[in-house]
Amino acid sequence: MTTHGVVDTPAFMPIGTQGTVKAVTPRELREMNAQIILGNTYHLFVRPGLDVIKHFGGLHNFISWDGPILTDSGGYQIFSLANLRKITEEGVEFQNHIDGARAFISPEIAMEIQAGLGGDIAMALDECVPYPCEYDYAAQSAELTTRWAKRCKAVTASLGDAHAAHSVAATKQLLFGIVQGATFGDLRKQSAQAIVDLDFDGYAIGGVSVGEPEEEMMRAVESTEPFLPRDKPRYAMGLGTPPQLLEMIARGMDMFDCVLPTRLARNGTAFAAAGTLNLKNAEFALDKNPIEENCTCQACREFSRGYIRHLIKAEEILGLRLITLHNLHFYLNLMSRARTEIESGTFDQFRKAFVAEYKTRDAITVE
Amino acid sequence: MTTHGVVDTPAFMPIGTQGTVKAVTPRELREMNAQIILGNTYHLFVRPGLDVIKHFGGLHNFISWDGPILTDSGGYQIFSLANLRKITEEGVEFQNHIDGARAFISPEIAMEIQAGLGGDIAMALDECVPYPCEYDYAAQSAELTTRWAKRCKAVTASLGDAHAAHSVAATKQLLFGIVQGATFGDLRKQSAQAIVDLDFDGYAIGGVSVGEPEEEMMRAVESTEPFLPRDKPRYAMGLGTPPQLLEMIARGMDMFDCVLPTRLARNGTAFAAAGTLNLKNAEFALDKNPIEENCTCQACREFSRGYIRHLIKAEEILGLRLITLHNLHFYLNLMSRARTEIESGTFDQFRKAFVAEYKTRDAITVE
Repeated sequence: MTTHGVVDTPAFMPIGTQGTVKAVTPRELREMNAQIILGNTYHLFVRPGLDVIKHFGGLHNFISWDGPILTDSGGYQIFSLANLRKITEEGVEFQNHIDGARAFISPEIAMEIQAGLGGDIAMALDECVPYPCEYDYAAQSAELTTRWAKRCKAVTASLGDAHAAHSVAATKQLLFGIVQGATFGDLRKQSAQAIVDLDFDGYAIGGVSVGEPEEEMMRAVESTEPFLPRDKPRYAMGLGTPPQLLEMIARGMDMFDCVLPTRLARNGTAFAAAGTLNLKNAEFALDKNPIEENCTCQACREFSRGYIRHLIKAEEILGLRLITLHNLHFYLNLMSRARTEIESGTFDQFRKAFVAEYKTRDAITVE
Repeated sequence: MTTHGVVDTPAFMPIGTQGTVKAVTPRELREMNAQIILGNTYHLFVRPGLDVIKHFGGLHNFISWDGPILTDSGGYQIFSLANLRKITEEGVEFQNHIDGARAFISPEIAMEIQAGLGGDIAMALDECVPYPCEYDYAAQSAELTTRWAKRCKAVTASLGDAHAAHSVAATKQLLFGIVQGATFGDLRKQSAQAIVDLDFDGYAIGGVSVGEPEEEMMRAVESTEPFLPRDKPRYAMGLGTPPQLLEMIARGMDMFDCVLPTRLARNGTAFAAAGTLNLKNAEFALDKNPIEENCTCQACREFSRGYIRHLIKAEEILGLRLITLHNLHFYLNLMSRARTEIESGTFDQFRKAFVAEYKTRDAITVE
């Protein structure tokens, strides 16, 4: 339960990096039954900037989305800047990717920015280490993430009343902690225990989907999950392919976000039960079928593969719009189906059948 | 009255160059009360090609638009290819802009392609001369256009029964003739008389909006109009700014097409009653107003100038989508208003007031 409504889990969160799910309107998101979207704090902090979003009364008002929003802490993007950032106990100094201006984010500042954005769920600032990562660095980093998580928690606790008076959100912003520990089982366990000790509203598993093999990803989640409380949402960050999502659900995960549906759409790639389709391929030129038979998305109800292929080849925006609608629908529908199967007690059969039918393996190349 | 419905005039036709009005779905076109759209024969002939579109049962089916479509003859685009084409009595030989492949279009072929596309209104093949143009060349060219028009007319007449059997359109495709004559009054008169003698379903004024000053454009239309029959639609090709459209309506024009609403949108420029707004400007960063007060388009109902500015600055597709929706709505709504004012007998006052309020003059630079 968030300020802007209930989120049924497992849930997929379309990513609205720069204040928009790429190429999609809020109306289209509602029509595809998106329950919650993700906003990227780093991008919004750099452009248009916190002052602008506060001026508009917070992110919901600014982007005209009245459902729940989760904002990340900005950490992942800042650590992706590689040479443009410097990390200390206090926080991270970085140069932004737009104009190279220097800025500094500490756990306290990350909380302040997210309070200003007014999302329903905020994330604690963490350090996300790359893959592969040395054990010693991963251990120190996970401990730093814990100390930062403690400071984030302290800020929101102390903000308490002030928050209620100043925040654009009428009610409480939830705060999730993030477990790190790279690919090391004992570090994952230590991190999970330390973060859970701080008592957050939900828990995320970070540092996955950073280039590691799928087995390592599964192991990282498996070594974390037993230490997360069963009555709080668990969020596997930055995942994944459709089969990976089902495997993660089987491993107790509740929330997901992933760029694949929107990013692959811009590349002409559509998701289907049998795997991904590259609609640029000549084989689709005369294909009168929809992307996927029986799919109820706007693209499949009205348009053929042949037409969408033409649009993609001609670099028409409508092409990537239609595939984006389909791909997001595919992910959201997969979660909806998973919820139904869980309720019926048939999720495991469903997962096995889906994974067996889904043929695309490691063939997804992100542009 | 066309095969796919009635078109109330004056009417603006959004341009669907490559089988899509750029960035817009057919549903969105219906929601903004677009009555008829334009398809570019040249572009569709080059990609995806006539065979593909015929395979899908014609342009309406291919693009999922069930309203009327007007297809141009392809002439304008081919003559824009400049050095890549060679013109003879028989027709035009050209190299396409995609892969440089050679092709040939004659009046007969232009009719055959348009029959295959299955639009509701086809256009005769004409030569569109550039501005400025020598008198002698303009005279010869207008005569060639007349001879080509005669051949186009002959094709559709002879196709008659065969057409009814083979065409994807269930009923008759209308054919419009095009008047040329550049900026020369006597040539315009001669061309109009010769084309009207051939008895088309409607008449277009071509060779305007090709770089000439506005007064020349007005004069070209004024010297053509008296020779066009009053009971047939008159189409001023490739026009124009909002004030120009009203001036053209005052001069007896019924139909228009123009790239400005969609092209300027991609550049961040929005139409408003007071003139164009460049939404990239910093002045809009904190602006909570819609693009235009009281506008009923989707963009103005839900989004602020400040948000749209952010999207454009961040190069997000949603930004150009929203401005495109607004701009097309603006043009379509202007035509709807013009129809109402004409019915009330108050069009002249409306036109004068609109033109006086509209401040943008020669300031529109197309990217």
